[in-house]
Amino acid sequence: MSAVVAEQGSTTPSTPEAVAGLRPGAFGNATALSCRECGHQVALGPFYACPECFGPLEVAYDFPAVTREQIAAGPANIWRYKALLPVPTDIEQSPNTEPGFTRLLKADNLARELGLTNLWVKDDSTNPTNSFKDRVVACALSAARELHAKVFACPSTGNLANAVAAAGARAGIKTVVFIPADLEKPKQVNSAVYTDSLVAVNGNYDDVNRLASEIAGEEEGWAFVNVNVRPFYAEGSKTLGYEIAEQLGWRLPDQVVIPVASGSQLTKVDKAFQELITLGLVEDKPYRIFGAQATGCSPVSAAFKDGHQVVRPVRPNTIAKSLAIGNPADGVYVLDICRRTGGAVEDVTDDEVREGILLLARTEGIFTETAGGTTTGVLKKLVETGQLDPTLDTVIINTGMGLKTLDAVADSVGPAATIDPSYAAFTATGLA
Amino acid sequence: MSAVVAEQGSTTPSTPEAVAGLRPGAFGNATALSCRECGHQVALGPFYACPECFGPLEVAYDFPAVTREQIAAGPANIWRYKALLPVPTDIEQSPNTEPGFTRLLKADNLARELGLTNLWVKDDSTNPTNSFKDRVVACALSAARELHAKVFACPSTGNLANAVAAAGARAGIKTVVFIPADLEKPKQVNSAVYTDSLVAVNGNYDDVNRLASEIAGEEEGWAFVNVNVRPFYAEGSKTLGYEIAEQLGWRLPDQVVIPVASGSQLTKVDKAFQELITLGLVEDKPYRIFGAQATGCSPVSAAFKDGHQVVRPVRPNTIAKSLAIGNPADGVYVLDICRRTGGAVEDVTDDEVREGILLLARTEGIFTETAGGTTTGVLKKLVETGQLDPTLDTVIINTGMGLKTLDAVADSVGPAATIDPSYAAFTATGLA
Repeated sequence: MSAVVAEQGSTTPSTPEAVAGLRPGAFGNATALSCRECGHQVALGPFYACPECFGPLEVAYDFPAVTREQIAAGPANIWRYKALLPVPTDIEQSPNTEPGFTRLLKADNLARELGLTNLWVKDDSTNPTNSFKDRVVACALSAARELHAKVFACPSTGNLANAVAAAGARAGIKTVVFIPADLEKPKQVNSAVYTDSLVAVNGNYDDVNRLASEIAGEEEGWAFVNVNVRPFYAEGSKTLGYEIAEQLGWRLPDQVVIPVASGSQLTKVDKAFQELITLGLVEDKPYRIFGAQATGCSPVSAAFKDGHQVVRPVRPNTIAKSLAIGNPADGVYVLDICRRTGGAVEDVTDDEVREGILLLARTEGIFTETAGGTTTGVLKKLVETGQLDPTLDTVIINTGMGLKTLDAVADSVGPAATIDPSYAAFTATGLA
Repeated sequence: MSAVVAEQGSTTPSTPEAVAGLRPGAFGNATALSCRECGHQVALGPFYACPECFGPLEVAYDFPAVTREQIAAGPANIWRYKALLPVPTDIEQSPNTEPGFTRLLKADNLARELGLTNLWVKDDSTNPTNSFKDRVVACALSAARELHAKVFACPSTGNLANAVAAAGARAGIKTVVFIPADLEKPKQVNSAVYTDSLVAVNGNYDDVNRLASEIAGEEEGWAFVNVNVRPFYAEGSKTLGYEIAEQLGWRLPDQVVIPVASGSQLTKVDKAFQELITLGLVEDKPYRIFGAQATGCSPVSAAFKDGHQVVRPVRPNTIAKSLAIGNPADGVYVLDICRRTGGAVEDVTDDEVREGILLLARTEGIFTETAGGTTTGVLKKLVETGQLDPTLDTVIINTGMGLKTLDAVADSVGPAATIDPSYAAFTATGLA
């Protein structure tokens, strides 16, 4: 469980051996971890870097036939897609937070405001801990269990910490969450309520992250969700793509706008769409994927606009903290996908992020966090700049919830009037 | 739309006439408003008090045959039960927040902690604005629309304000929300983000409520969700009962613990169970309903313990603000139901409320607000005092979300350690 790079001994097996002690079907229809760069395959295990080229490992599958009816007969959460995830077939029996199958809202008011014909919001703010992180953490938890991890852990400053602490509590597994010591008190409470093992680290998020990688390498039996079980974790984001397609009536949208932090979510939605086409669950058709960043941390957007194949790291400076990854691990894959599909990567200023939050709340009654404000702001900009076709069916993903980033809009909104408790005082406001 | 008491002209019609201008089927299978005290019936309209005896009006129905399959074929929200609600058959077509069908989590860790055999948590914190209020507001919105209301409104200090402001924004109807002027800034923001028409009132919640009733009586076309369309609004809570039964595999639980503010939710869960039995959707069997209050506002619990038939109003003094109704409208019906079914009403102190919040978070990964802390605390007390049978299948309802009442536990939890970013510093904590 300490391994973070697959062992050198496992050189290019055509059929990788399973890690010792795994029960049959521990990872469902997953067959191996495959290097995204060189294609080298290693056994399913706590590995995230290729032993040949150090490229990122990704879960590979051998899918059986899967029907719409099988999926529809499943539960109203991500496990309806368990055949397409690296989880055992009895995954519903293991205590987990049961995330997913969140609302896909037809957003006619917002569409009208921006001049779009058909727009939907995939709203992940209603997940158990109010962000899409519950999806990926549920898959990481399953991997941690199947790999006999003793500790479930992560470095995080917000949504991920909440999701890991909650999932760990429910699963009854020892959970340790590492946060920067200067994190705002409300965010600390929102994780500490679930666990006695919150560790505050003197330093910034990068320091916390480095410490987590060090512990993952040194300690036996620790599953860091976004480090040594990252390939399993990341697969959870595919469920966003599956749900969008199923909730549209088993068809792909024409355009999707997705926020970009590490870039993983965007690549996994694309992977999900490709899998659904391959499995014959949706018609094969073109779709465009767009990435959304905040200007204060927009390395992928900058690379897209400059026509670069690589992403130059930046030092983040934006209110969109949950997107503030200056050196995004999947940045180059985001560039590939947005270019291949005819999409784009765009960014908006912090003021536009705030406007985006209010726009989504006022038109559709969805209170999003700064990441969702970024995505809404980028949607607006993409339409205004002609990069997105307003006549095509479009979906945007809201990944989190406004109560977690109240400060972003606290000074922008308030009561229209303050009155004495009388009907006369009320009619004087002009609101009657 | 200004009427708050049904007109005297409509004396005891055996088949009440519909209000003029209603489209056929505007209220689905609902047939009339029926007085809970004297049985007098009036037409479906913006009425909440009986013209004969001033008793509360409640929606009456003539249900067709409804099958489990019809329900299962519906959407993953409350509209799967539309045949059992006072809403039109095309309700899904009207923009609304699409609440409901929230998680029913098997709570084995909490059960073990308290010595119960089988326990579930119905978790309404994952609704669109993170409380059960989205259910009732969705039904009120439908009524407001069908009754051609021009304004959608409520007095509230918290969850209801959020739900009304969000639903009104999404529906594109003018929305006015009245709050006490001294409400905490974060709670104001959480409503103001959705609407330009938040009105702060100098006074306490009772003052705000009185003003709302006055406006409802004076202004044409205002639908106050919890005043003049209250009978429709309240029906939304039935969906909690339907979902519990369906998610248990179409059977009723043996015992349910429900928080009591006005008492409406508890009475509607009972009504839902009775309807499911009458419709043959579940087996007829005994069940016990328990009410949960905070000691600082426990008029119904006090009446239950004293053997009284009436509820003596109190002045609330508890951290469980969302339960702090000193003169609960449905208090006597709660007494009736808890006595008839063999349940009880119990209360816990504010310290026990805080303990309840942490207990639910640590065992099941659910971060509840003070109302849920009350329910969890009461569950514990009911077991300890032998009032609830730990061997029977038990469900508790979590009505809201901890991020809204962070202060309740902010001083009780925090990091286990604060360290420098080194592996050596970490191992010294003893957490490795």
